[in-house]
Amino acid sequence: MCRRRSLSPGGEGVLKPELPRVPAQGGAPSAGEALTGYLHARAGEFLRGLRLHGESGADTAGAAEAARALRTASRRIGGTLHTFRPMLDPVWADGLRAELAWLATTLAQEHACVSRLNRLVAALARLSGAAGAAGGTADARGPLGMGAARAGALLERQLTLGRTRSHSAALQALGSARFHAVADAVALLASERPPAPAFPPPPADAVTEAVRRRLLDAAAALPLARAGRPYNADALVHGLTTSAEEAQDAPWHRVRSLLRLHRYALEVTGPEPDPELAGAGRLLDRHRDASEAATTAAAAARTPRIAPATAYVLGVLHADQRHEVEAARFAFQEVWQTAAGARTGGGR
Amino acid sequence: MCRRRSLSPGGEGVLKPELPRVPAQGGAPSAGEALTGYLHARAGEFLRGLRLHGESGADTAGAAEAARALRTASRRIGGTLHTFRPMLDPVWADGLRAELAWLATTLAQEHACVSRLNRLVAALARLSGAAGAAGGTADARGPLGMGAARAGALLERQLTLGRTRSHSAALQALGSARFHAVADAVALLASERPPAPAFPPPPADAVTEAVRRRLLDAAAALPLARAGRPYNADALVHGLTTSAEEAQDAPWHRVRSLLRLHRYALEVTGPEPDPELAGAGRLLDRHRDASEAATTAAAAARTPRIAPATAYVLGVLHADQRHEVEAARFAFQEVWQTAAGARTGGGR
Repeated sequence: MCRRRSLSPGGEGVLKPELPRVPAQGGAPSAGEALTGYLHARAGEFLRGLRLHGESGADTAGAAEAARALRTASRRIGGTLHTFRPMLDPVWADGLRAELAWLATTLAQEHACVSRLNRLVAALARLSGAAGAAGGTADARGPLGMGAARAGALLERQLTLGRTRSHSAALQALGSARFHAVADAVALLASERPPAPAFPPPPADAVTEAVRRRLLDAAAALPLARAGRPYNADALVHGLTTSAEEAQDAPWHRVRSLLRLHRYALEVTGPEPDPELAGAGRLLDRHRDASEAATTAAAAARTPRIAPATAYVLGVLHADQRHEVEAARFAFQEVWQTAAGARTGGGR
Repeated sequence: MCRRRSLSPGGEGVLKPELPRVPAQGGAPSAGEALTGYLHARAGEFLRGLRLHGESGADTAGAAEAARALRTASRRIGGTLHTFRPMLDPVWADGLRAELAWLATTLAQEHACVSRLNRLVAALARLSGAAGAAGGTADARGPLGMGAARAGALLERQLTLGRTRSHSAALQALGSARFHAVADAVALLASERPPAPAFPPPPADAVTEAVRRRLLDAAAALPLARAGRPYNADALVHGLTTSAEEAQDAPWHRVRSLLRLHRYALEVTGPEPDPELAGAGRLLDRHRDASEAATTAAAAARTPRIAPATAYVLGVLHADQRHEVEAARFAFQEVWQTAAGARTGGGR
């Protein structure tokens, strides 16, 4: 229900289109030292999350916090292993990265169910706003009011079930031998140097330049000019074919992942990512959330034996979330083009 | 099914925010002469439409052309009687105007059904585009593909029925004693001066200034600043309460009507309405068309015993047309604000 395709391990994205290269001064720590220090710190966070998990017991808030810490650290370590693979033993890096991706994805599902339900319930409340506020009109008690209530109940039932399943799956994962092997590998990483490659590694700035290049190329391949024309109706153009919508959204999800990888690379090598443009990554988070919420609404409409009024409301909800997708693209391209303008136009 | 609320008689709107006042030169024909000449010409068109109707017989294209001519002339005469009422016998003007509004509304229904069906069928084709084009995927044959086909068939059935009824109603109206009385009154207007008021009329420029003022006031009361922020989601904010949507759209429909009245007033007194801004009226036509199409989709979803997949597609279609409403508002405010900027900023 709440499975999220994990395109690559990562966290929340921030972007600066003028992506700074690694400074190669003599006084600063070497790139290898910076990488080791970063992995030590993230591995330490992972272990603190693990301890918190052991202590949380029946405390659900503590358990959620532990899962969040483990997830965040797993994503950052995995993303760093991916980007800095040429500076590491590739077999070791790929193996650990795959296991961390499995863990982060498993731990993310419960949270995804909760936030998706919140988003859809909020959208339903907005769409039927007048029913509650501007007078309890005939509509509110009519078939559409009923449909909204039923659609809300259906989504709540399905996403709560998804949440419960995700919670069990996460608990099961955290008790598995597979998890313990990951935890052991990360524990080593908290104190030891990561295994080096057999051949001399390339300079660190070539490595970060590669992720920067991939990000810029992927963003340049997006239909930004079209996204910049409001109400282009692109997001809903194949509104009745879920598979076409998934194909359409994929390049945007990919840029979102690359923004995160790039952000993690800057966390390793510096400089600080530009907080002014942190919004670009958040806009693609919104794009992803709306895209998945739209898919969930469409999937709920395929539930057998629902009332036509329920299905109608789910159709409105699907289209509403697809327009959120389009709105997020519009907002993203504004931020991105402005930054690109500042980059090429000088001045700022 | 296809009834259209007629807020006031009129035709397709064109707007020039810098609304010119009537020139009061000595050499030009007096305002009273211009008004008489205009009413003569429109009444002549009405009578040609009537003759065409008598000659058309079984020729549907000829009958449609006759209905169009009668409708257009009725709207222009009715709008002119409304605007220039202070320069006419008010009892006579109000009586004839009401009858012309009845006639224009009756004759408009069939055309409204046809164009609404075309709009909804085109939107359905766009929304299920991938089903036909990018590979006949599972979706196309799945419940949503079925739903799209069924929703299309349902809309076609309902709007074709509405069209047939409207056609009969129009034929009945054109054969009625009520229509013959209107036609007699218009025939008089084709050759004689319209009845004058008991008191000396105000100057014509005060009359056109009044319609210009009402248009500017009504447009100023629109939420243009909000409409100018793309993806504000206003049009769908009460997407599950049709009555709230109607209340929200009414001020825009009113500006559309006032644009038409203002355009007709300029046709009487000159100068030519600015063709550059003819688009503003057409954008509010689009607003009205999308608004009515959205209402039709919602109404079709209330048909008893439809399949959930059909209802779902109608929900998507409703939301899609509401976003067309929002897009039309966005486009309108751009044209209107640009024109307002040119007006206050000088230069152009």
